[in-house]
Amino acid sequence: MAERDDHIKWHSYNVTKELYNRRFGHMSGVIWITGLSGSGKSSIANELNTMLYERHIYSIVLDGDNLRTGLNKDLGFSAKDRSENVRRTAEVAKLLVQAGALVIVALVSPIKADRDMAKSMFEEGEFVEVYADCPLAVCEQRDPKGLYRKARANEIAHFTGISSPYEPPSNPDIRLSSDLLSVKQAAGTIMYYLFENTSV
Amino acid sequence: MAERDDHIKWHSYNVTKELYNRRFGHMSGVIWITGLSGSGKSSIANELNTMLYERHIYSIVLDGDNLRTGLNKDLGFSAKDRSENVRRTAEVAKLLVQAGALVIVALVSPIKADRDMAKSMFEEGEFVEVYADCPLAVCEQRDPKGLYRKARANEIAHFTGISSPYEPPSNPDIRLSSDLLSVKQAAGTIMYYLFENTSV
Repeated sequence: MAERDDHIKWHSYNVTKELYNRRFGHMSGVIWITGLSGSGKSSIANELNTMLYERHIYSIVLDGDNLRTGLNKDLGFSAKDRSENVRRTAEVAKLLVQAGALVIVALVSPIKADRDMAKSMFEEGEFVEVYADCPLAVCEQRDPKGLYRKARANEIAHFTGISSPYEPPSNPDIRLSSDLLSVKQAAGTIMYYLFENTSV
Repeated sequence: MAERDDHIKWHSYNVTKELYNRRFGHMSGVIWITGLSGSGKSSIANELNTMLYERHIYSIVLDGDNLRTGLNKDLGFSAKDRSENVRRTAEVAKLLVQAGALVIVALVSPIKADRDMAKSMFEEGEFVEVYADCPLAVCEQRDPKGLYRKARANEIAHFTGISSPYEPPSNPDIRLSSDLLSVKQAAGTIMYYLFENTSV
């Protein structure tokens, strides 16, 4: 007896992405910020989201740490679970893009193949990859959550950059030297990119 | 060596639910439509979403079948997977409520405990339970996806109402006799409820 996966029927809805976009007066899409723990992803996402709000652009942040207290709380830090973490985040982003939002993702997402999978779910021009490029030594010195110290002390496993790999993007749309830029400068760089290269 | 679940830090964001609500000019919340397959959930959700769009209220539909082609495509129809299906849907709804949306969920969600768990994730007054109350015999006669026929022929497993339980809400906020009402009437009933009982 088959499971029902073959029998799922797609329901079309009247209010399409185009109608949502028309209502908000801007395109929807994803700004995907990848980088090491401590590279400033969440701070940049928060600043960008605030800037967009002030300009009446509808944006939402999907923050990796916050998602791990909710949607992704059943997932750990193995390669498989990290991949599933990226997949679910991308799926939620896709729902939101359909509904007209500019989605800011702040997620370590250390594996290139996982990020490429996420990108492949969106249309051309809808996915902006941002690399918060901060040297490991700087992230480790900042250590805002005290996690590097614990990782070095072997108190936590699978820690990106220490005991788990980080594959930097080879060709990100935006590379932010987030050790040198202020949070406002970093967010402003993304904002400028959006205004120059998209219909936001 | 501990996993990192104890070390997840919540990031606070400047643009709060209150600010999103102020921007959109209405409250956010969840309209959770439960009912048998074929009871009209998706059609009612589509109509309600369209009505809300026309009235400049920001709403999004989370459709159970559509989610099973994306976010929930790894889940089957066992009790455990159905429960996880409800949990993830509620978690996504919560993210959207934080971001100012009125979320319309169209999901069989057959188990009372699962629906109650979903409801418990929201604040008082944010969660409206709608029961698309259509007799099994009518759903089976409609059989819009041909699934009842297959379930009776033992071609699909765990089919709600046939080989899997449906626990009707004992005290839903809205009970729709969806076998007697037109889709417009059913959606209009929800709309009227929202205008009378909430700050939508």
